Amino acid sequence: MAKHVLKSWIKYQEDCDFSIHNLPYGVFSVNDGPKKIGVAIGDYVVDLFAVASKGLLTKSNIPKTIFKNSFLNPLMALGKGKNAELRQDITKLLSSRISKLRELPKALIPIENVEMHLPVKVTDYTDFYSSKEHATNVGKMFRDPKNALLPNWRHIPVGYHGRASSIIVSGTPIRRPKGQQIPANAKKPIYGPCKLLDFELETGFIIGRSTELGSSIKCNKAEDYIFGMVLLNDWSARDIQKWEYVPLGPFLGKNFASSISPWVVPLEALDPFRVAGPKQVPAVLPYLKSRGKKNFDINLEVAIKNKSAQETIVCQSNFKYMYWNMSQQLAHHTVNGCNVNVGDLYGSGTISGKSKRSYGSMLELSWKGTKPLKMIDGTTRKFIQDYDTVVMRGFAEKRGIRVGFGEVSGQILPALK
Amino acid sequence: MAKHVLKSWIKYQEDCDFSIHNLPYGVFSVNDGPKKIGVAIGDYVVDLFAVASKGLLTKSNIPKTIFKNSFLNPLMALGKGKNAELRQDITKLLSSRISKLRELPKALIPIENVEMHLPVKVTDYTDFYSSKEHATNVGKMFRDPKNALLPNWRHIPVGYHGRASSIIVSGTPIRRPKGQQIPANAKKPIYGPCKLLDFELETGFIIGRSTELGSSIKCNKAEDYIFGMVLLNDWSARDIQKWEYVPLGPFLGKNFASSISPWVVPLEALDPFRVAGPKQVPAVLPYLKSRGKKNFDINLEVAIKNKSAQETIVCQSNFKYMYWNMSQQLAHHTVNGCNVNVGDLYGSGTISGKSKRSYGSMLELSWKGTKPLKMIDGTTRKFIQDYDTVVMRGFAEKRGIRVGFGEVSGQILPALK
Repeated sequence: MAKHVLKSWIKYQEDCDFSIHNLPYGVFSVNDGPKKIGVAIGDYVVDLFAVASKGLLTKSNIPKTIFKNSFLNPLMALGKGKNAELRQDITKLLSSRISKLRELPKALIPIENVEMHLPVKVTDYTDFYSSKEHATNVGKMFRDPKNALLPNWRHIPVGYHGRASSIIVSGTPIRRPKGQQIPANAKKPIYGPCKLLDFELETGFIIGRSTELGSSIKCNKAEDYIFGMVLLNDWSARDIQKWEYVPLGPFLGKNFASSISPWVVPLEALDPFRVAGPKQVPAVLPYLKSRGKKNFDINLEVAIKNKSAQETIVCQSNFKYMYWNMSQQLAHHTVNGCNVNVGDLYGSGTISGKSKRSYGSMLELSWKGTKPLKMIDGTTRKFIQDYDTVVMRGFAEKRGIRVGFGEVSGQILPALK
Repeated sequence: MAKHVLKSWIKYQEDCDFSIHNLPYGVFSVNDGPKKIGVAIGDYVVDLFAVASKGLLTKSNIPKTIFKNSFLNPLMALGKGKNAELRQDITKLLSSRISKLRELPKALIPIENVEMHLPVKVTDYTDFYSSKEHATNVGKMFRDPKNALLPNWRHIPVGYHGRASSIIVSGTPIRRPKGQQIPANAKKPIYGPCKLLDFELETGFIIGRSTELGSSIKCNKAEDYIFGMVLLNDWSARDIQKWEYVPLGPFLGKNFASSISPWVVPLEALDPFRVAGPKQVPAVLPYLKSRGKKNFDINLEVAIKNKSAQETIVCQSNFKYMYWNMSQQLAHHTVNGCNVNVGDLYGSGTISGKSKRSYGSMLELSWKGTKPLKMIDGTTRKFIQDYDTVVMRGFAEKRGIRVGFGEVSGQILPALK
C-alpha cells in the first residue's frame, strides 16, 4: 500500500466505498430508536452521538446534541472550519492504534443493522441540465438534430426549480405516477398511469453555508458553500413531462419522487479526484469563469434489477464529463441575488457521456424507445417496468485511494387503482 | 347595519380591511421583542400569546407556546377543526360586550407599533399560470397571436416550481437583479442589471394539512387542505427570463424575490364571496372536475409609487376571473402522488381580466413596452424603475361585510455595483 494511503484499524476490502479517506455522514437509527448522525467506515457505522458523549471529539469539541438529530443540517451549519476539525477527530479515532474508540465497541454498529434515513432536510431543490451530451441527445430526439443545443445552452448552466417535499432516501419504493398524457396524433389528453417511466443518473451537492438575499457567490468561492455530494435519481415520467412542459418546464413529470443516497460524501474527500472539465467554447461570461480543476472523476453506473433481483448494468458514465461544474452552477444560481440555505440540494442534471453505453437515462439508452435494451433475464426494456428496481452507484479511485457513494436505489410499484 | 353583519367593540371604519369577519393571522414583534402570532382587527393587532396566557381561549384551549413563534406553521398544523374553534374564541372575545379581552389592554397593540414578519416558513413554492387572459396576452406577444393559448393550457392548470428561499414579506426592499440578457439581434448574451423589471399581480394560498407521498387530493376535498390566502407579487425580470427559460422554464428571472402580504386571510373568511368560475371548454378530465362555487370575488389593484410616494393606480383586476381555481390546482399538483406540506405556498399566476386596465403585469399593461403608462407625476413607465415601490391591495366586499388583505409592497433598489 502506498504511503499516502491511510490505514484504519477497522478492516475492510480494498474496493470498499467507505474507506477512511471517505468518512461520509448519514442519519441512521437502530431498531426504531432515535435518529442519530453517523459516519460510514467499512462495514460499520460510527455512532457520533456515542463518540461525542464520551468526549472523544477532542479537537472539534462539538456538543453531542448536534448528533442526536433527524438531519445533518445543524452539523453542516457549523461551517467548514468546525467540520474540518470533526473530520480530523474522526480520522484520528479511526486510524490511531491507541484510539479510545477501540474501548467503545457500542459506538461501532454493523452497517447491516442500521436503518438509513433522508440525511438532509431539503430546504430548496434545483436541478441543472449541465451535460452537453445529454442536452444534445434530447435536442436531437425532440427538436432539430442539426441544432440540437438551444442557443442559451453554452452560455448558461440551464436549470429549474424542483420539488423539495418529494425527495426521498434510497430504498423508498415509488408508486408509478398517474397523470395527463397525449397519445400520438390525438388532440385531447388522456388520464392514466405513466407508460414511459424513466430514471436520470445524477449527482447532487448539498449546501453547508447560507447566504443573504441580494448577495451572490463568486465562482472561485463557490466550493466554500458546498458541504458534500450524493447520488441522485431524478425519476421522470416522460409522457407526462412531454405534454405539460411547455412553456414553464417540467413539473408533475418529475415531482412525484427524486431519490438520493443516504451517505453525504464531504467535498474534501473528493479532493484527490479533481480533473479539468471540458473546454468551454465560446468563452463564458466573466462571472462564470472557473479556475483550476473543478470537475471530479467519479465513476457512475446504473443497474436495473428485475423482481427476482437479477441485475443488468445498463449505463456506465462519469461525473467528469459535465460541461458545467458545480461552482459555475452556484455562481449562476446566485448572480441575480437569489439566496441559498444550509440544506439546499442541487442536482447536476443527467450525466451522459459520448458513448451510447454512458447515456444516463432510458430515454437516451433506448433512443426514445426505438432500441430496447436486453436484460440478463432475456426480457427487454424501453422504459422502467413495475417492480423493477433501479440502482445507481458511484465511486472515485486513484492510486489506491477509493471514495465511494454506496448506492441509491428505488423500486417502482404499480400505480394505485 | 344588516343583521348578518357582526359588530366588534373595537371601532373601525366601514372600509377597514380587517373587520371582525376577517381575522387574518400574522407574525409580529414589538420593539425587536420576540416574534408572536397575532390577529388583525381594525387598527389593532391582538396578541394571541397574551390572550392564551390569560386562559381566554376557552373553546380551542390552544397552549400559549404555539403563539410565541416565528411562523404560523405549528398553528396551521393543528388542523381545520382546532382552528375553527380558535376563530370562534377570537370572534367571541372581539364581539361580546362582556369580553375578558377588554380587561387585557396590553393584548391590543396599535398596528402602527408592530413590525410584521414573513408569516409562514415556506416549505415548497409552486406558481401556476391560471388566468386565461394573462396566458393569452403572453401568447399573443411572444408566440402566435392566432393560437395564443398552447394546446395543453385548457387541459392542465399549468404550473412550475418556484424558489422558497427568496419569498419575503411586504416592505422588504428588493435589489434589481443582475444576469444574462440577449440584446435584440445579438448572437451572444451580455451581463448586467435587468432592464425590464416587472411585477405580477397574484394571490397565493397556504397549505394547512400535509399529505403522504404517493397520495392525491381529490378536487372536491382540496379546500380542506387550504389554510388561507395572501397577496403575492411574483417579481419578474423579463429580459433575464426571456433568454433563460427555454426549455426548462423560468428560473433566475423569478427567484431573486417574491413578496407576500403579512396577513394570512383564513379561507373561511372568504366564504361569503364565493362565485362560479368561467365555463371551462373543452370539459376537463374527471380528476379536475370542480363542483360548486370555487372562485372568489376579490377586488385587486396595483399601484406604483415614485420615490416621493406619489401613487398611480396602474391595474384593477379581480381574482374571480381565474380560469382554474385553487381546488383544481391542488388536485392537479397531487394527481401524480406529489405530497404537500403545511407551509407550502401556491401562487395563482398573474391575474389579468379582459379589460386593458385589468392586466396584471407591466408586460401586458405596456404591451411589451410599446405603450408606456402615464404616471401621476408626469413621467411614464414601461417597466419598474429604481426606487419605485409597487403596492398591491385586495379586498372582498358584499352586503356590508368587508374582508381585505391589506397590502403587499416592495421598493426596488438599484443593482449592486
